Amino acid sequence: MALGKQHIIEFYDCDKDILNSVTQIEAGMKAAALAGNASIVNATFHHFSPHGVSGVLVIKESHLTIHTWPEYNYAAVDIFTCGETINNEEIIHILKIKLKSKRIESRSILRGNLEVLKKPGKPLT
Amino acid sequence: MALGKQHIIEFYDCDKDILNSVTQIEAGMKAAALAGNASIVNATFHHFSPHGVSGVLVIKESHLTIHTWPEYNYAAVDIFTCGETINNEEIIHILKIKLKSKRIESRSILRGNLEVLKKPGKPLT
Repeated sequence: MALGKQHIIEFYDCDKDILNSVTQIEAGMKAAALAGNASIVNATFHHFSPHGVSGVLVIKESHLTIHTWPEYNYAAVDIFTCGETINNEEIIHILKIKLKSKRIESRSILRGNLEVLKKPGKPLT
Repeated sequence: MALGKQHIIEFYDCDKDILNSVTQIEAGMKAAALAGNASIVNATFHHFSPHGVSGVLVIKESHLTIHTWPEYNYAAVDIFTCGETINNEEIIHILKIKLKSKRIESRSILRGNLEVLKKPGKPLT
């Protein structure tokens, strides 16, 4: 049991033009977040010179981030969610389609392990 | 060699009141980012009912995120940076002070491994 769940995903062999379009990256991230039942609180997306996009969606359930390297056809995505209502796998599935990625690697970790947080001898003040 | 470096940090035994103050969390994150030579592009911080703060700093070199659980004296922080100019350890050091954390756990991973991105048989289009 943990407070949060984080997916760390490498999207390889994506469409270079999509990765360089702040409009398409923002739209794709929002569509994926909504498909996974996330509630978007705030969004900030930027295009970097000469290429690449960085974007963050603050969601009620934590956050989604993306950084793209069009020159490598690669995007790094993080999905950090709390609670049981978000479908992280659906977010990944939709993003893979939106980025036209041919290959992904996904790792998942837990954040705020309740066994550690409640460990005896570490009283909460 | 990799495009990005990510630190995933658990801050335990923090000050409960600080964790519940959006003002102090935002100020602490910005101070830590600047101490580590990050260039802040955008900031978004929210207080959640009944307690807890979520915050994101988009930096020129990628991002910093924080989610706090005052009821567990716990904060989850991610530091994702590109390039050689950012001192992630200094960011962690300053945040530990700002959150008055007595104990941290830090993991670091690489993002966008260049060996994988350049692997033969996976031509970049």
